[in-house]
Amino acid sequence: MHYSKLIKINTSGRGTLEITDRIQSVVSESGVVDGLCTVFIQHTSASLIICENADPSVRRDLETYISRLVADGDRAYTHASEGADDMASHIRSVLTQTSIGVPVGKGRLVLGTWQGIYLWEHRYHAHARRVSVTIIGSS
Amino acid sequence: MHYSKLIKINTSGRGTLEITDRIQSVVSESGVVDGLCTVFIQHTSASLIICENADPSVRRDLETYISRLVADGDRAYTHASEGADDMASHIRSVLTQTSIGVPVGKGRLVLGTWQGIYLWEHRYHAHARRVSVTIIGSS
Amino acid sequence: MHYSKLIKINTSGRGTLEITDRIQSVVSESGVVDGLCTVFIQHTSASLIICENADPSVRRDLETYISRLVADGDRAYTHASEGADDMASHIRSVLTQTSIGVPVGKGRLVLGTWQGIYLWEHRYHAHARRVSVTIIGSS
Repeated sequence: MHYSKLIKINTSGRGTLEITDRIQSVVSESGVVDGLCTVFIQHTSASLIICENADPSVRRDLETYISRLVADGDRAYTHASEGADDMASHIRSVLTQTSIGVPVGKGRLVLGTWQGIYLWEHRYHAHARRVSVTIIGSS
Repeated sequence: MHYSKLIKINTSGRGTLEITDRIQSVVSESGVVDGLCTVFIQHTSASLIICENADPSVRRDLETYISRLVADGDRAYTHASEGADDMASHIRSVLTQTSIGVPVGKGRLVLGTWQGIYLWEHRYHAHARRVSVTIIGSS
Repeated sequence: MHYSKLIKINTSGRGTLEITDRIQSVVSESGVVDGLCTVFIQHTSASLIICENADPSVRRDLETYISRLVADGDRAYTHASEGADDMASHIRSVLTQTSIGVPVGKGRLVLGTWQGIYLWEHRYHAHARRVSVTIIGSS
């Protein structure tokens, strides 16, 4: 059994956005009870992570950390036509995930108690992002 | 054909722990001969990696490297209620893997000669960790 | 429906090599129309990424960035028997991907407009690399 859907997510600029409920909705409408859900983002300047979803300070600290690790507007970058956040966004994406596989059991994403799925917008400005959700399994 | 199992792994604190045999056991009992095995860790302060499994110095150097890359108790962290290793563990997890898909062929994980699957405990203290193993394929 | 193939990719030393067409060829010969394609590299000193495929400067900057992030021949490394690029290659692999799941729709990899799948050779010298392609879905 196979089900797939392309969902659109509007970001409001750099930052993490929880999309667990959006993904769970697709799992629910798929009718798959046991299997695998693959979440794939069709961009190279936004990415996916699974992160602690209880305390928002975790994502704030994560943003602080990655901003320091991957400097915007680094002089070493030659690819800078779209601004200081352009090349930094590609690097942040490469260091995190474009695709994440999450098990499905009893029709639900089998996440740990404190896990959420996040879309991480790396560009400064708001973007409309496309996320492909693919579910394979049995009903 | 679909098979899934939740396995529990007791860590002894920060460090890498090979779990290849534990995952292979689940593949074997699944009866799947050809397909895909997805390993998923249900935590945000421990993660998964595939790493060289011949020389233990690789994992020691990896620990040295990541400890320098992601400082424990960094003053920039505001999320520090559980100690100096708290936020560092979330960052280490985001920079490595929560989910890894490994092909299955002839009933075996199709790993390269020197590849092992590791659970990376990022917290200082021992923890009981839950890893979900999902196998999809044909018998 | 399940199809898998091991492909060999000859690298010419450190750098990124686009393999999207090679993977698409396997998807096409599989006959799978809708499903999931998992790309898995059987090495720990070369890895996989999905990256912007329009402007080559992105991959050049990425190489500049990672060379600075993961120093070759760092004195802290004890695993150095194979040269200055040995341990650095293992770390680069751990920070990027060994396995990537890409959705398949209408017989094609469902990639974004500017996404390409790349093999990233981290060793200085040319290597013959093995990449396992596993496709699960319906025809």
